[in-house]
Order: sequence, then C-alpha cells, then structure tokens
Amino acid sequence: MNFRSDNCYGVAPEIADAVWAANQGTDSSYGDDRITARLKARFSEIFDHEVYVYPVISGTAANALALATLVPPHGAILCHAGSHIAVDECGAVELFTHGAKLVGLEGANGKLAPAIVETALARFEKGSVHHPQPSAISIIQATEVGSIYHRGEIAALSGVARANGMKLHMDGARFANALATLGCAPAEITWRAGVDVLSFGATKNGAMGAEAVVFFAKGDVRDFDYRRKKSGHLMSKMRFVSAQLEAYLDDGLWLKLASRANAIAAQLAEGLAGVDGANLAHPVEANEVLVHLPDETAARLRKAGAVFYDWEPPRAGRTLIRLVTSFATPAQDVANFIRIAKG
Amino acid sequence: MNFRSDNCYGVAPEIADAVWAANQGTDSSYGDDRITARLKARFSEIFDHEVYVYPVISGTAANALALATLVPPHGAILCHAGSHIAVDECGAVELFTHGAKLVGLEGANGKLAPAIVETALARFEKGSVHHPQPSAISIIQATEVGSIYHRGEIAALSGVARANGMKLHMDGARFANALATLGCAPAEITWRAGVDVLSFGATKNGAMGAEAVVFFAKGDVRDFDYRRKKSGHLMSKMRFVSAQLEAYLDDGLWLKLASRANAIAAQLAEGLAGVDGANLAHPVEANEVLVHLPDETAARLRKAGAVFYDWEPPRAGRTLIRLVTSFATPAQDVANFIRIAKG
Amino acid sequence: MNFRSDNCYGVAPEIADAVWAANQGTDSSYGDDRITARLKARFSEIFDHEVYVYPVISGTAANALALATLVPPHGAILCHAGSHIAVDECGAVELFTHGAKLVGLEGANGKLAPAIVETALARFEKGSVHHPQPSAISIIQATEVGSIYHRGEIAALSGVARANGMKLHMDGARFANALATLGCAPAEITWRAGVDVLSFGATKNGAMGAEAVVFFAKGDVRDFDYRRKKSGHLMSKMRFVSAQLEAYLDDGLWLKLASRANAIAAQLAEGLAGVDGANLAHPVEANEVLVHLPDETAARLRKAGAVFYDWEPPRAGRTLIRLVTSFATPAQDVANFIRIAKG
Amino acid sequence: MNFRSDNCYGVAPEIADAVWAANQGTDSSYGDDRITARLKARFSEIFDHEVYVYPVISGTAANALALATLVPPHGAILCHAGSHIAVDECGAVELFTHGAKLVGLEGANGKLAPAIVETALARFEKGSVHHPQPSAISIIQATEVGSIYHRGEIAALSGVARANGMKLHMDGARFANALATLGCAPAEITWRAGVDVLSFGATKNGAMGAEAVVFFAKGDVRDFDYRRKKSGHLMSKMRFVSAQLEAYLDDGLWLKLASRANAIAAQLAEGLAGVDGANLAHPVEANEVLVHLPDETAARLRKAGAVFYDWEPPRAGRTLIRLVTSFATPAQDVANFIRIAKG
Repeated sequence: MNFRSDNCYGVAPEIADAVWAANQGTDSSYGDDRITARLKARFSEIFDHEVYVYPVISGTAANALALATLVPPHGAILCHAGSHIAVDECGAVELFTHGAKLVGLEGANGKLAPAIVETALARFEKGSVHHPQPSAISIIQATEVGSIYHRGEIAALSGVARANGMKLHMDGARFANALATLGCAPAEITWRAGVDVLSFGATKNGAMGAEAVVFFAKGDVRDFDYRRKKSGHLMSKMRFVSAQLEAYLDDGLWLKLASRANAIAAQLAEGLAGVDGANLAHPVEANEVLVHLPDETAARLRKAGAVFYDWEPPRAGRTLIRLVTSFATPAQDVANFIRIAKG
Repeated sequence: MNFRSDNCYGVAPEIADAVWAANQGTDSSYGDDRITARLKARFSEIFDHEVYVYPVISGTAANALALATLVPPHGAILCHAGSHIAVDECGAVELFTHGAKLVGLEGANGKLAPAIVETALARFEKGSVHHPQPSAISIIQATEVGSIYHRGEIAALSGVARANGMKLHMDGARFANALATLGCAPAEITWRAGVDVLSFGATKNGAMGAEAVVFFAKGDVRDFDYRRKKSGHLMSKMRFVSAQLEAYLDDGLWLKLASRANAIAAQLAEGLAGVDGANLAHPVEANEVLVHLPDETAARLRKAGAVFYDWEPPRAGRTLIRLVTSFATPAQDVANFIRIAKG
Repeated sequence: MNFRSDNCYGVAPEIADAVWAANQGTDSSYGDDRITARLKARFSEIFDHEVYVYPVISGTAANALALATLVPPHGAILCHAGSHIAVDECGAVELFTHGAKLVGLEGANGKLAPAIVETALARFEKGSVHHPQPSAISIIQATEVGSIYHRGEIAALSGVARANGMKLHMDGARFANALATLGCAPAEITWRAGVDVLSFGATKNGAMGAEAVVFFAKGDVRDFDYRRKKSGHLMSKMRFVSAQLEAYLDDGLWLKLASRANAIAAQLAEGLAGVDGANLAHPVEANEVLVHLPDETAARLRKAGAVFYDWEPPRAGRTLIRLVTSFATPAQDVANFIRIAKG
Repeated sequence: MNFRSDNCYGVAPEIADAVWAANQGTDSSYGDDRITARLKARFSEIFDHEVYVYPVISGTAANALALATLVPPHGAILCHAGSHIAVDECGAVELFTHGAKLVGLEGANGKLAPAIVETALARFEKGSVHHPQPSAISIIQATEVGSIYHRGEIAALSGVARANGMKLHMDGARFANALATLGCAPAEITWRAGVDVLSFGATKNGAMGAEAVVFFAKGDVRDFDYRRKKSGHLMSKMRFVSAQLEAYLDDGLWLKLASRANAIAAQLAEGLAGVDGANLAHPVEANEVLVHLPDETAARLRKAGAVFYDWEPPRAGRTLIRLVTSFATPAQDVANFIRIAKG
C-alpha cells in the first residue's frame, strides 16, 4: 500500500521497451541524436503549435532552467507559497536565476488567482532598481494538493502576466493528470491560455527519468542551451531520455497512464467518504488525495503497512496526510486501505 | 520640505570634521589603518561586549553580507514580507547567499512575532534536502513603517530562532532612532536579547556613507572578510569610512542626531492629528510617519513644494504616504507642512 | 566507423539487464531505495576503504558538485588549461562554486606536475583576502588526450596539495580505462595516493547515464546532499541510476569493458604507425588516440564514413584529430580505418 | 617612505573641498541628485563622445559590474594571468558574472597581444554549448607592473575582439597615469581604439573612494543599473561620490596629480640605475617601479622605514619588489630611498 509518491513506482512497460529499442548501434551524443531530433515534431503535433523541446532528467531542473531563462537575476517570480518551486526544490530557482526573488503567495486549494497576484505586485514598483522586478508568474498543474487549474483560470492569470510584462510558467510535473481530468486538448491549457513555458513531466507518470522544457515561442528560448549544459543537465547519451518521452506520447500512453492514476485517486476519495473522521482538505481532481484523518486511524493504517506522508504536523488528534496514486497502484491497495481505515 | 528620505540630507558637521582630520599623511589601505583598528574597541565599549566590526558603505551590502555569512545557499531566511531586504534591495540577499530563500511573512506594524514565524516553519522540514533549511530570522529596527521592536519582542523571536537552530539578524539601518526612543543600552536590544549580527547604520543618520556589520560572536564571522572583498565592498581608503563611524559614536553624537530626527517626527504626527482626514497607519516610534491623507491634501502639499513618497497606490480618494525626518530637517518645515495640510 | 566519442555507443547488455531487473514493485524515491543503499558497501569494497557515494547523471554534475563541496566561493582550483572542467563544461564549476576561480595551467600530455602547480601558487598569497585562495587541485584520469597519471605522479601532486592546505580532486570520467592500463587496485591511484574525491564515471564506458561522486572521508561530504538537490541532480527514481552502477562494478564488468576499449585504441595506434604522415601527439595509454594526419588523409576517411573530431584547427596541411574507442567499437572498424588511411 | 600603494595616500585638497561644498541642503538620493546628473555631460566632454557614467566606490566593483553587464554566465573573459581581476579581486568577476570563466594568459610586461589571444581562442569553439563562449577581452591601463598600452596595441586587441564577437574592457584603475604619459586625448586610447567599457579610476589618484564605469555605447549599458543595486553598490548619498569625480576632472586636476606621481616614479627609476644589483623588471611608464633588489638592500631599506611589497618570493638572494608612487609622495622620500639603497 504505497501512497507516498508516484515516484515510488517504476517504469511503464511501453517506455521500457522504447529505451531498449534505442540501444542499437551508434548515434551522436549530447542531444544531436535521431530520437531527440524527432521530439520537436512530435511535441509540436501534440500541442498543435510549433514548440521548442529540451529534455532534462528532473522536474527541479526543468523548473529552474525554464525560469532562469525567462527571468533576470533582478527579477521576481510570483508563485503559491506552498508550490514545489517554493518549498520542495531546496531553492533551485534562486540558484539558477542567480538570485531572483520568489514571492510566495497564499491562495485557496494551492492555486493563485488574479487578485492575489495584483495585491502582491503593489509592493514592487516597475522600473525602480530598488525593487526586484516581477518577471514571471509560476503555477503548477496539477497543484501540490491535487487540485487543477481550469482553462479560464489560467487565461486570467496570463492576462495579469501580460498586462505587467511578465511571463507565465507552468510546472507540469503532473500535467498529464490534469489534462486527463480536463479532457481538453493540450493547447487549451497551455499556449492558447497564455502559458509561455511548460515543465512537461513524465517521470511521475511512468517514465524512468524524463522531463521536457517546452517553449511556445522561439524568442523565449534565448540561452537555454547554455544554461542546461552549464548546470550539468545536458545528458551525453540523451537518446535514452528522448526515447522515454517519445514512447510516453505514443498512442496516447501518457493519458492512459494518468487516467488510471486519477481513477485510483477517485476511488480512494470515494472510499474515504465512508471513513469516520476523514475529511478531504481539497477537491480531488488529479492523482492526489489530501485528507484529515484521526491520528489513530493513520496509525492503524501505517501499522498495516500503508505508507504515506504527513502533510502537516498533527493537531488536535488529527493529521492532514497526502495519498498519491500512480499508473501502477494496484486497485486492491485502495480496497485494503479503506477497509483498514474503517477499522 | 523634504520628507522623502533621511538619505536626502547631508553629513553632520562633527562627522565631516572627522573625515577631514583623517586626511593626514599615509596609512595602510584596505582596512589595515589605525582608525579602523580602533573601531573594534570603540564598538565593544558601546555594546558592552567584545564585538567584531566590519565597515561597509551601504545598508544593502551590510545586510546581504551579514546574512550570506550566516546562511548557506540551501538555507532560508524568514523576514517580514515588506522588509527592506525583501522588497527594497533588488534581491541582494538572494545573490550574496548564492540562492538562499527569503520567506516573506505578514505581520502587524511591519513586525514579526513568534507565532508568525512558527507557522511558516511548518513548511520546511528540518534535515530534508528538499526543503530550504530555515537558517535565520531577519528583523528590522526601526521597521520600514516607523515602529520599533521592544526588548521582549526581540528576545521572543530569538527564542524561536535558537529553538530551531537559526540565527537572528537585525537590520539596523535606523538602529539609532530605535535606541533613542527606547532609551536603553545598545546591549539590551542586541546580544542580550539574542541578536547574532547587526547591520549598524550610520548613513541615514548623518554619515556620508558608512555602515558596519557587527558580529557578537567570533565564530559567526567565518569567511566574512573574503565575502566583503569578493563583492567589491572592501574600500581601499577605508580609513575615511571608519572615521565617520568613530565620530558618529563619539560623545553620543549618534543618539543626539537620532533624537532630533525622532522629535521632528513626533511633532509631525502631533500636527497631523489636527488635519482633516489624516490617519496614522502605524505608531510613530522613530523618524517615520506613515499617514493616510486625502488625495487633495497630498496634492496641495506637493504643489507647495513638499516632497514625500506614496507608500501605496491611491485608493478611494486617499493615499498612504510616508514622511521621513532627519537630524537636519528644519523645524520650520514641519510647521509649514501642517499649516498647508490644514488647507 | 564512429570514433567521435565513447558517448556515441550505447549500453552494455549486463547494465541494461540490471536496470530492467530494478523495475519491480515500489521503492522509496530520491535515493532512499534499496539499490542505492547497497552502493556504499559495494564501492567501499572496491576501494578497500569506507567511502561515501552519491550517484548523479553526468560527469559535469559530478565534477562541479564535488568541487563546490570542497572549495569555497573565494577559493581557487588549479587544473590543466585543457582539462574538461576548464574548457568542456561551459563553466559549470564556476557556477556551482558560486564564483571560485579556475586557474588553467599548461603541462605536457594534458597533465599537471608539482613544479607547475607550485609556480602558479606564487601568485596567490595565503590568507590574503585579495587573492582567491587555492583550495583544490583537479586532475583528470585518463586525461583528455589519452594519457594517464601513474601512482607516483598522483602522490606527488597530493603532496603539494596537502602542503598548501588544498584538496585533490580526480575527474575519473574514464577512470576504468586508466585503471585497466595500470592494472593496480583502485585504492592505489585514489585515496592511497592522496585523492580526496573522485568523479567516478560509468556513462562513457557502457552505462546509460550514471556517474558517482566518491568521497574518501566523511568530513569532506559536508553539504553535498543539499547541493545535489538544489542543482536538480537528485533523481526521483534514483534506483535506476544506482542499478547501472551496481551492474557496472559486478564481476569486474567495468574493467572488462574498459580493457576492450583500450585494446581497440592500441590497435588503432599500432595501425597508424604504418600510415604516411601520421604522428601520434601523445602516448596512447587509454582509449583515446590523438594523431596528426595530413588533411587529405582525414578528408578521405571522412568521405568513407569515418566520424571523429578535429582537436585543433588545421595548420600547414595537417590536422590534429581525436579518435575515441569504446567497449563496443567493432574491431572491423579499426581495420577499415587503417586501410582507408593508407590510401 | 611609503611606496606600498597609491592607496596609502589621502585625498587631494581640491577633491576634499568639492565634497564639502556638496554638503549643503537636501538632494535626491541613490544617484538622482544634481551633481550626479552633471557627470554625464562632463565625462562626455572629456571623452569627446556621448558616454554613460555610473559611479561606484571600488575598482573591484567597477570591473566586476562592467564585465558582468557585457558577459553572460556562459561566457569567457580573456585577460592577463597576472591582471588585477585575475589575482587581486578574490574572484569578484566570477561572482558577479554568475560563473563566467576567466582565462588567464601570459604576456610580456603584463600585457596581452593579439597572437596570445588568438591562440587561446582556439580552445573555445564558437556556438558550442560545451565551451565557455569568449565574450570579452579585459586589459589594464596602466598594467599591474607599470607598463602601458599604446594606442596601436589597444586597437589591435580590439580588432581581435570584434572579429570574434567579443567586447573590450579596460581596467583603468590607473588610467590617468597612463594618459599622462601618453599625452593624448582620452578618446584616443578608449573608444577610438575600440574600448567598449572603461573602469575609470580616481581613488588611487587622489579621490577618497570614487570610480566610474564608463560605457561608450548606450546598448552596452543593458541592466547595469539593476546589477549595481543588487550588489549593494548604489550609494544612497551618491552626491558625495559624484562630487569627487567632478572635482577630479575639473581643470585637468586628474592629469596634474597623475603627472606628479609619474614624475616621482621616473626619479625613483633613475636613482635605482645607480644602485648596485638593482635591475628594473619592466619599463617604468606610469607610477609603478618593479625592481629586483639584493635581499640585503631591501632589508636595509625596510629597516630605515621604507614600506613596499615583495612582488615575488625571494630567489637566489634577490627579490622583485614593487614601488608605487602617488600624487602626494614627498620628493624627499625618493632621495632618501635611493641614498639608503646605495648603502
């Protein structure tokens, strides 16, 4: 009963096969290979737009490199105070941007909204050298608490970004999970809604270690290539990363995997509705369930072998825990979890 | 009627004289001179404690170098969201710490309090490589809005810092103004209250360009010397900076200057009480007055030659403005300002 | 006939099998898995010493993180002017060390020697804040030009390092190739010869993307863990990297692969002895052959499908080219290459 | 007999007077004052070209900020291996450029020449992400060893810079000394010879603490303003720095001061010609004399109160020492020094 992270699960068989198929003969290194060359067309097709795609091996690298490319050292990035870049990446963005400022904002269900951003902007005078200059908004899709941004919400934030000369970045570590729920075209919640750069995640959803930074305009790419190399993120045998991404997109695999993870999460949420003292903290819209449980229930589950994170310290006999599902989470694990939770 | 900043005023005559007295013969450069050598003893006497003193020429340098010395790149610094290091130094701390995270927190009257800090700490798990590690609390004395921290408030924050393995930094750009109001010994609101390092300001209060980083324990100094040099802040003719600091402390000059600035601010606050529609936004405890004024009153004052900053954008016919007084602000300016404000 | 780089070849079957074997069930993420846990013991056995092992996915990351851990921002690193960290990593070390200085020195056959280092040290006064402080020597084994350091040479450099308070780093991107030639125990050319930290390469020699930073003393590890995370180099599904390293070391695979690559290079060197106008530029001691060829010979080879790098711009009708062999280079390619070179 | 550094001397009276004259009334802070506003026109007149002038308080700041503005993090800067930015600024350029690479080159009399630069360029392939990209040449005028670049030498280096897409930076900490010797217009050895940015020094030549970064094209200024602030180098009471620069340029003061320092150095060199065992190491073209002295002569001088630096460690009974003269060095000191040296 592993609900700790989607990262605890392995590699989808289709992706594994593609990696192995790539292990033939020789090819150029450092991304000049034939598989990487095909990615641009593949992603452009998926996003119905000419895109610029750069594989890396971690979400932290994708986020930090994408933002460093768009934000100057004297810039500021507005994000949710609980977002991954703010609290879970050890300050990678501050390092890679050479000291740009992350402004952490509070917002319901792990999300930003235009009014929240506008209030924060009042503290930073445009063009004044004293103030870090707001240069980007960064949102996360799906959020850290399992909610998702709808198209209109993204477009509204993009409107604030554009009106203030900022770029919009989307941390899509669980992009497929959000998309599977929304059921729309990838373009609808990215460039058509004003997203400038996307950290496109695959690792959590069945890849071995493969993410892609996707720019939607050539002018935004700037010196990304140098930044990736200078930070040690240009893989010499890149083809094995690119092969993962290619297989991930092939024949809708990424959405099948995400849909399965989402469905398991929905079952978990449904089951928890019948558990005494269990209260969902946020809407369950992707593959994460944040739920308040009585401490004794949580203890009983752990004793029975369930693994999961406490999301907040215990308070008044209850703890907010996080349950994450994956493409490979056994359905039986959900049934067992709920049975034990019911005591 | 210049109330824009204490930085708009010049150099106190006693300090000017000392700089000129230093212009005799030769001396060693880069801080190895005789005047700089005397500072340690002088500051140690003032603080009733052996201290380690490093002159620099700007408050931004003092804050960023002090914090970079105490906080690792993977660290986090908790401060008020409106503090000078957070919004007025263009991200200098993020640069000098090589990407440590500033966590901006809200708090009444520009101040932090233990509960605010403790809530924020919950987001950063100690010892987890994923989370920036809270390494320092930074407070500002007097605050950006003219309030001051009392000894007990500082000690309480220091308690939280120590309980969590963090250091306590005080941005004392207006330290003399706070001290003049409190009327206590410098030690009482610094090391005796748990402050580890102080950015000791003199520029705003009558120096030409002189601040000092004051460490209260030798072990905290670490590689400060290299950091100051590497950032271009080791003055070759340091003696002229040190001479300012020496004169500033001599015969209580610093407190006389600050007391005068504070008295002018108090007169301003008192006068504003009689102005229609004027409402003080914060207690006036040092040399800054933040007051909501009707927009027509503000416009009338500006037309008559008064200069001051809008602190927030206008809203509903009123604007929050900031008035700063200095050791050299003419008393007549206050009288004129109030007279014009009354219309 | 691909002699461009060992990176152009794929993954050794034994390593591929190990990765797939790791794709079972769930395990903890971010290096807390069972395979990664076994690496410490395995490497300690190989090196006959308790070591501290940190997998990463690129040699650039290994070098930059290792050096940043041992060298302060105000430090200097002495290395060969043509070394990988100096010219082939886009300044990653300068970035990760937050601005430490690389001092590039010339030396025969791509190697440093004590006298070269000592001459350079004279420019940097110990303890003076003006001078970057020499903090590490970095050598590369095998070198960029295919030569290797013998045990005595390493020990001599280590002696200079220790006498001057510096650490000794070894970039072992082709460590196995050097070791295969030397035929000694890994300990002999690392910690017993005074090496403090080793970038242990596997990617070029048959892994998919797996390197390890190996510290030989616990005290040197310092904040490495945070640095790896902050730079985006902590893989979430680390077990798939660790599995590569484990298989690489198993049953002497690493040395078998390296020996084969070295043997191919030796055949190439031997064949070139019979080619008109061909002159080896350096001793061929590992899997690289640097040879001056008449431009017409090089052109004929390229026309016939051989791929390789020009190492220097053409001069006087001849060009210095680099030929790299791998564990998987077909013997037939060597025969063909020599045949065509002979014209 | 202080020949240790021109920094050991104080402030020229004309400059002191100007600082004091600036201490009247109020003015805007952070460089928005009236004196700073006049600098642009003044410098443009001096350089016979529209220039963009930014005062700072140290040469290290001027150099590091100028280069960081023109060189990206993935860039490389070619300079003499013994230049101030390479060995005397604790790696400030590496910090401020966020990890650009300094490539230190050897050259006679502390100078670079086109062939030296071109040889170095061969190691860095243009447009390859693996190689730091050569982005600037930095020369120093006068050099660290007291020689100067003539117009043609500068133009030749500028030619190499332009042909390779690089900028040319001049560290003019002792620019006035070089100019006084050359007797040409400032334009001749700066923009007319292809210099893009000049660190214009005044501190060593009679100011208290005042340097200026001078750009010769608006497009090169880029984000300099933010970089100066973010590094703590934007003085709040800037007018007192600008007043120094204004007085320095007024009525040819800068050249008078430099000429006097140069003349003293020439007397020193002349006198040393008559000292047994004294050999000048470099031509004396500005205000520095590097001379090999027998160790017993150096000891005798020190015993008699002379202060100066050893430039290299003693070897074979002799030491290379550096003697620096200033606008205020008493002529009598030279006579005494030579008398004692003669024994």
